[in-house]
Amino acid sequence: MFEHITIIGIGLIGSSMARAIKRGKLATRLVVCDANEDALRIAKNLDIGDDYIHEAVEAVRDSDLVVLAVPMMAMESIVRDIAAHMKAGSILTDVGSVKECVITSLAPIIPDHVHLIPGHPVAGTENSGPNAGFASLFDGRWCILTPPIGADEQATNLLDQFWSHIGANVEIMDAAHHDRVLAITSHVPHLIAYNIVGTASDMEEITRSEVIKYSAGGFRDFTRIAASDPTMWRDVFLTNKDAVLEMLGRFSEDLTALQRAIRWGDGDALEALFTRTRDVRRRIIDAGQDEDTPDFGRTHED
Amino acid sequence: MFEHITIIGIGLIGSSMARAIKRGKLATRLVVCDANEDALRIAKNLDIGDDYIHEAVEAVRDSDLVVLAVPMMAMESIVRDIAAHMKAGSILTDVGSVKECVITSLAPIIPDHVHLIPGHPVAGTENSGPNAGFASLFDGRWCILTPPIGADEQATNLLDQFWSHIGANVEIMDAAHHDRVLAITSHVPHLIAYNIVGTASDMEEITRSEVIKYSAGGFRDFTRIAASDPTMWRDVFLTNKDAVLEMLGRFSEDLTALQRAIRWGDGDALEALFTRTRDVRRRIIDAGQDEDTPDFGRTHED
Repeated sequence: MFEHITIIGIGLIGSSMARAIKRGKLATRLVVCDANEDALRIAKNLDIGDDYIHEAVEAVRDSDLVVLAVPMMAMESIVRDIAAHMKAGSILTDVGSVKECVITSLAPIIPDHVHLIPGHPVAGTENSGPNAGFASLFDGRWCILTPPIGADEQATNLLDQFWSHIGANVEIMDAAHHDRVLAITSHVPHLIAYNIVGTASDMEEITRSEVIKYSAGGFRDFTRIAASDPTMWRDVFLTNKDAVLEMLGRFSEDLTALQRAIRWGDGDALEALFTRTRDVRRRIIDAGQDEDTPDFGRTHED
Repeated sequence: MFEHITIIGIGLIGSSMARAIKRGKLATRLVVCDANEDALRIAKNLDIGDDYIHEAVEAVRDSDLVVLAVPMMAMESIVRDIAAHMKAGSILTDVGSVKECVITSLAPIIPDHVHLIPGHPVAGTENSGPNAGFASLFDGRWCILTPPIGADEQATNLLDQFWSHIGANVEIMDAAHHDRVLAITSHVPHLIAYNIVGTASDMEEITRSEVIKYSAGGFRDFTRIAASDPTMWRDVFLTNKDAVLEMLGRFSEDLTALQRAIRWGDGDALEALFTRTRDVRRRIIDAGQDEDTPDFGRTHED
């Protein structure tokens, strides 16, 4: 699909893309770039690219597609460095979880002959680093592209096809709407998972080992998400502040109503909500966005 | 281990116990009892007991161990019915998620010659009903027993051994402490899962289908727990009100601090929490209370 692709940042997402590019034979030459020497060496040992280059300026030379797969707040300074070295007509995209800030911060600093088409593959695991990646991570998941107003249509279509070949379903969306949808489906869920794990760890009268031992009562589910990359998630909350704060306000408002229902013994209100939420799980499974095995398919020999 | 065991309520937990009792040959005669004719017929078709009796009064006759596996608030009226018909020296236990209320409500109404030893196996899935059960549900999980002050030691030891044979690790604990530990490791996690699923379903500008499509960003994890049995969970919150409200207060307090950190752009505070929570996941895996496969082992062919 592309003559030459460069991936900057070879963590979970970057290395999964590299593997999927290889699997689908989507580039003649795949350049892997990372500021971290260890990550670059691991990627080389994994043989997931064609060239391994430490300097971004060098890595983007002659590249037709440059993918930024680094935490949100690391993007701007990288793009300031590479902007002048990018090939005319090439596409610059990213995989960040927040999209309006990508347009705001990168659009003013890239040259006119480079097409900025931000993207966000909604997929991942709680693990980080080049070893954590795998080619099928994006299969059947959604990748959202948020081309800025006036973006080149051909470049958008090309990137759309690229992600389809990676294995994802593609959706085009306005960046601001993306940020609000993801705030409620991803960012606030992560925040409350991090928060409950923090609260449980800080109990004076309940030991940490009790929290660990009895975690199968529900708590352990939250610890998976709360094991996600700290820097990446710090940047998500700092760059999607407004949408996160609004959705968090709604969450807290609803939680206060539940708290009141418990205090006043309003069993009907509780049961009504708990019945309604059951249906959402069913619809996610029907849509192919989760599996139907009980307890996430955790091993129970029977 | 027992001559005659009676399980009242043949849902996920009751039917898993029946299967584990059969697997371990822990009873000569296992009587299955359920007020719901459908559930009883399904249990019979599954062949998970020796007798299937609709009336509890009849089901407990000559039984050495009676297990209440029904929602918390259904227990008292059942015990009022069966109390006079229970065998002298027999054990009455339960599997409810809240323990102080079991002692408070049941101790005054059972005869002196019956040993009340409440219990709580910390295990489950999001599915309900006799078809959802399986023999290995309790393997490697913890079962907490909360004998009231002055409870018969021999009866407690017998029940301890029984649960070990079912496959669980057993812990003896004060009922009030149990209720506080489970409030933070199970009840509040369930409440916030139900709550976020409700909040996400109620957005005016974001469609339900968007919430479903992009649920792999984190939201889908919460929908599993939020698909748990509505009646059982209503009863948990109504019977463990004080502990749940206190833990919920702590959760909300911590969440407000996070909200403030986001509003003021305090990245250090966010990253510090997100780094600390990662370790909790590791400890749960090391303790054998969850598996080490990324993304809960969801299928990603690679």
